[in-house]
Amino acid sequence: MTVTTVTTALPSTAWAAELADALGADSVLTDPDVTASYARDQAMLAEAGTPAAVVFPRSTAEVVAVMQVASRHGVPVVPRGAGSGLAGSSNAVDGAITLVMTRMDTVLEVSPADRLAVVQPGVVNKALRDAVARAGLFYPPDPSSYDWCTIGGNLSTNSGGLCCVKYGVTTDYVLGLEVVLADGRVLRTGRRTVKGVAGYDLARLFVGSEGTLGVITEATLALRPAPQRPVTLAATFATTAQTGEVVERVVTSGLVPSLLEVMDNTCIRAVDDLLHADLDRDAHALLVAQSDTGGEAAVREVEALARLCRDAGADLVHTTDDPAEGDLLLQARRVALPALEQLGSTLIDDVAVPRSRIAEFLDGCDGVAAAQGLTIGVVGHAGDGNMHPTIVFDPADADQRDRAFAAFDDILGLGLSLGGTITGEHGVGSIKVGWLEREVGPVSLEVHRSIKDALDPSGLLNPGKVLRRRDTLTP
Amino acid sequence: MTVTTVTTALPSTAWAAELADALGADSVLTDPDVTASYARDQAMLAEAGTPAAVVFPRSTAEVVAVMQVASRHGVPVVPRGAGSGLAGSSNAVDGAITLVMTRMDTVLEVSPADRLAVVQPGVVNKALRDAVARAGLFYPPDPSSYDWCTIGGNLSTNSGGLCCVKYGVTTDYVLGLEVVLADGRVLRTGRRTVKGVAGYDLARLFVGSEGTLGVITEATLALRPAPQRPVTLAATFATTAQTGEVVERVVTSGLVPSLLEVMDNTCIRAVDDLLHADLDRDAHALLVAQSDTGGEAAVREVEALARLCRDAGADLVHTTDDPAEGDLLLQARRVALPALEQLGSTLIDDVAVPRSRIAEFLDGCDGVAAAQGLTIGVVGHAGDGNMHPTIVFDPADADQRDRAFAAFDDILGLGLSLGGTITGEHGVGSIKVGWLEREVGPVSLEVHRSIKDALDPSGLLNPGKVLRRRDTLTP
Repeated sequence: MTVTTVTTALPSTAWAAELADALGADSVLTDPDVTASYARDQAMLAEAGTPAAVVFPRSTAEVVAVMQVASRHGVPVVPRGAGSGLAGSSNAVDGAITLVMTRMDTVLEVSPADRLAVVQPGVVNKALRDAVARAGLFYPPDPSSYDWCTIGGNLSTNSGGLCCVKYGVTTDYVLGLEVVLADGRVLRTGRRTVKGVAGYDLARLFVGSEGTLGVITEATLALRPAPQRPVTLAATFATTAQTGEVVERVVTSGLVPSLLEVMDNTCIRAVDDLLHADLDRDAHALLVAQSDTGGEAAVREVEALARLCRDAGADLVHTTDDPAEGDLLLQARRVALPALEQLGSTLIDDVAVPRSRIAEFLDGCDGVAAAQGLTIGVVGHAGDGNMHPTIVFDPADADQRDRAFAAFDDILGLGLSLGGTITGEHGVGSIKVGWLEREVGPVSLEVHRSIKDALDPSGLLNPGKVLRRRDTLTP
Repeated sequence: MTVTTVTTALPSTAWAAELADALGADSVLTDPDVTASYARDQAMLAEAGTPAAVVFPRSTAEVVAVMQVASRHGVPVVPRGAGSGLAGSSNAVDGAITLVMTRMDTVLEVSPADRLAVVQPGVVNKALRDAVARAGLFYPPDPSSYDWCTIGGNLSTNSGGLCCVKYGVTTDYVLGLEVVLADGRVLRTGRRTVKGVAGYDLARLFVGSEGTLGVITEATLALRPAPQRPVTLAATFATTAQTGEVVERVVTSGLVPSLLEVMDNTCIRAVDDLLHADLDRDAHALLVAQSDTGGEAAVREVEALARLCRDAGADLVHTTDDPAEGDLLLQARRVALPALEQLGSTLIDDVAVPRSRIAEFLDGCDGVAAAQGLTIGVVGHAGDGNMHPTIVFDPADADQRDRAFAAFDDILGLGLSLGGTITGEHGVGSIKVGWLEREVGPVSLEVHRSIKDALDPSGLLNPGKVLRRRDTLTP
């Protein structure tokens, strides 16, 4: 990883004028003072260039116009939602168009009879959740940024969230997509039916491709019935390894909680400092779990979880069927990252490991923190093995920064050594391009590139994200 | 659709000898009398050529050897499992190698701690189900042919089954794949973790691609905890439309049964003839549903289903928490297709429609039967809108056969007109290539072809399935 170098590039007046003609001048920004605020996402130390223009389409037809202009003039295009990403996926590329999808923010349809919704990409995750809740339905994927991230961004990175352990991730809810391809053709793929195997699963190829294969302009998403009133458990442990043991026993016991989250002592203290929530500041790990099975079944499920916690040696186990109290316990988990950010700059890892290796992974993170002499707060989706060890450091201290970057890499290496993946939900973006190569190996990389070349032969879409730019490859 | 013309082709001695050298003579069959039995799947009227050789690899290395020989000599390869397909996907191509994967039939690993299994493609679905059941786990996808179809075939067509309504289809259980590409490179893609977004979702691109993009040689599959003891409901109705109404109300009521199947009067009588099960032969539709939520919750869920059935005007509603009695009711549904086959040759449609359109679809099928003067038995996965209208006819009667083919097409057209898909779980194979073009349209077809060309530039893998052979395209 290297620290950003921001340069300034002026747009070619020819293509910028064509864009303004097609979309209206108010949809095409080129003032560097304004466009700079669209240069990066939340991965604060990822590289970011300077966009030549920031464009705000209002319709699929306008996205088509942008891609036609871009391909005619060979201008790269970086699709972008709200900018909540954590891997630099939507960071600007020098001289490129940043295509901000936030004006396409309409929930086009909510169908209770078919249990689906049709949305534009700029719809905020929470806005969709609220819209379908009014129809008694539920859109599960809930990234921590759910109150401001967009569905387009969620689709682009195949976002997860807290309820993945029971309900899966974004791709599990995608029935169909409309995608504008690099040359401006409009692909409609997928369906409104529950099942369908007509042709290749193109929709799921675009999901998680981080804007490198096409621009998603509409999505048909499956919904679920509203979950039932949750029962919540919180438990504290003297060691993170005990928490890992609980997670393993949850899996082998056949329990399927709707949420199973972990925070270590660093996070507990940071959250307590932020919320003054009277947390047990001496606990080495806090586990929060929920069951939304409903009624007696949920109570029984949480009782079984409580038993596993006690068997593993929990210091304290607390359960509640009061939703408000459950929300408070959850709130502590939700603010973990903002709380850590109070302590300094953060580098957030996103390793997912097989659930049987969680304890080893947590121990390994302790080892990395000790070896690099750094504070690392671990928060994560324990139930699905997706952990966010978060390195806190002072970026003004060059030595500390170097050690932070080294720890970031150490943790990725640790994850791979345990049979895990470098990214469970944040994506490859610009910060893990080299690590993707290491994880998937040469044949997979060749297949990735052949698909990229097939769909975007000129390499216009989000160049340098997920895969290296072709012009930087050695022949 | 046209009736098969079987021709005889002799293998090039050169490449057949190379295969025998690489795999051993007992793994390479060229005797036409023997190879003919590997020429087709269960879509009895789909086209099938004559394989030049039928090859039985025992390992990934042997599949690599086959693909290297095939690509060196430009010989097409048709991957094949047990041959239970219903769309001609694995039907032989003249002069090609039919690659039978049934000897690679080892369950390599069942991991309760990570809730996954690693299997070779020749493992029979039921063998996997049994292996994981011994570890208290559950592999949900259950095509009707589950006791003889292979996991490789299931992956190839993205098979569904009876429990999809609650548990999804094959692709929802795929964590990782090993695939031998057209040129013999071995791709390993995916993961052992619950979540993972490192790179494109290649695994799900290969799932459902019907052997046209690569040969799957290993799969890592997610498992679930064993379901709880089911509670079963059977209900009969005076009209199929009433059944459709029940399905719609199930969806809008937020119920998620683990199974919701429908049979019409033709099927009821055929099954009763076969099983002598004392079914109500005058009922116009039979609905079978289960809940596996467990305990009181399952009883309540089935009670709610029973109420919906009565509200829709059911003639009879019967529920049971006796698993043996439940199995008997289910057995009636499972033998529906074999029962219809007692009446004559069958053409099985596989349309999936949005759940809100099921009643219209059922009425439409009645209309098609009347218009063509044919018997059509409708059986289907009502809960997910995936219906199998099955046309019964005498193939020796040319006029009847023509009307049967016309009805088959009418039903596909009907499905599309209701916003459905031409295939919910059987695949495109060779029998719906033209219909796929109609469903997905020109841009999607171009994208399909560009991906096919990227991964199999010489068009060696299962030519003419899913997509037309390139040499038959008009320039």
